[in-house]
Amino acid sequence: MRSSYRFVGDVMNDRIVVLRLGHRIHRDERITTHVCLTARAFGADGVVITGDHDRSILESVRDVVNNWGGPFWVEYVSSWKRVVHEYKDRGYLIVHLTMYGINLPDVISEVREGFKRSGGMLVVLGGAKVPGELYRLADYNLAVTNQPHSEVSALAVFLDHLFEGREFNREFTGGRLKIIPSPHGKHVIEEKKG
Amino acid sequence: MRSSYRFVGDVMNDRIVVLRLGHRIHRDERITTHVCLTARAFGADGVVITGDHDRSILESVRDVVNNWGGPFWVEYVSSWKRVVHEYKDRGYLIVHLTMYGINLPDVISEVREGFKRSGGMLVVLGGAKVPGELYRLADYNLAVTNQPHSEVSALAVFLDHLFEGREFNREFTGGRLKIIPSPHGKHVIEEKKG
Repeated sequence: MRSSYRFVGDVMNDRIVVLRLGHRIHRDERITTHVCLTARAFGADGVVITGDHDRSILESVRDVVNNWGGPFWVEYVSSWKRVVHEYKDRGYLIVHLTMYGINLPDVISEVREGFKRSGGMLVVLGGAKVPGELYRLADYNLAVTNQPHSEVSALAVFLDHLFEGREFNREFTGGRLKIIPSPHGKHVIEEKKG
Repeated sequence: MRSSYRFVGDVMNDRIVVLRLGHRIHRDERITTHVCLTARAFGADGVVITGDHDRSILESVRDVVNNWGGPFWVEYVSSWKRVVHEYKDRGYLIVHLTMYGINLPDVISEVREGFKRSGGMLVVLGGAKVPGELYRLADYNLAVTNQPHSEVSALAVFLDHLFEGREFNREFTGGRLKIIPSPHGKHVIEEKKG
């Protein structure tokens, strides 16, 4: 089973794809949604989800892309291994975020250089159970601190370091709303669609 | 109602406290747990939670502190406003993370300088509904990108920038387990308690 929900964007231009493993319906709904929104905000192009097929994730992400712009996509795939091998074959660097890996400051320069020479990057985020094989298939097992916290924060901090903060100025296109940063309130403008 | 669960640590030494607003039982359980674990991993001293009193959060955080060390604490308080005023009175800088605020790169140096001169920092994270008054009470309304994503990722990236990456080398004490970073596997050692 493979279902693709490409809201905006073109797969051939993808540089960063996130693979979220083993989504469980209900229990992981909000965490996986936050993973997708974090991926989008911090510069990834799309998220592949394995595990339960969950329409609520798609709807939440579609609403955000409609309101705030893209490009961004979400896809369900049943086999994580097939995804990893497909991206490996296309020359992508496989980076698995795990608290057991090498701490970010000790490896981020090397990952950044490898990324520049690669076809792109697949960033793999574990779910409830991470298959041991993934640790061997990954080019890098990278820890965002060697402490337990969250796949959401691990993804954000990793992408922020990878891009060295450039994602803060990322422009999204095709959305309806835009924030004018404000010191003490909310200022949102509605943009005309081109 | 005020219930404090101080696993390890001393309130007088607190430099960074996170205030999580409007926790809802069941619905927010995992997100609030991830907020607490992210706060701990990225260098905050404790988390104050308003909203529903939820034992499952306490149990998850207590288990992590027992296994991986502290200091770290969690506290439930019924009035967010009282918390903000108490910390303001103690000379803490109040930083509210919101997508409507000033984008991080444009304000982080000023916040970092203000933090050095302050008694500490209260980092406020919104819940389902953020009271308008908070935008006025906060010294800074700070956006971790002006895009929707997650309070978990916003907190992590904010603290990472505040500490300029020093949290990656933070040592925790009193835990039972420690990770030896590994390129392709899991290596955990059990430490004797002193």
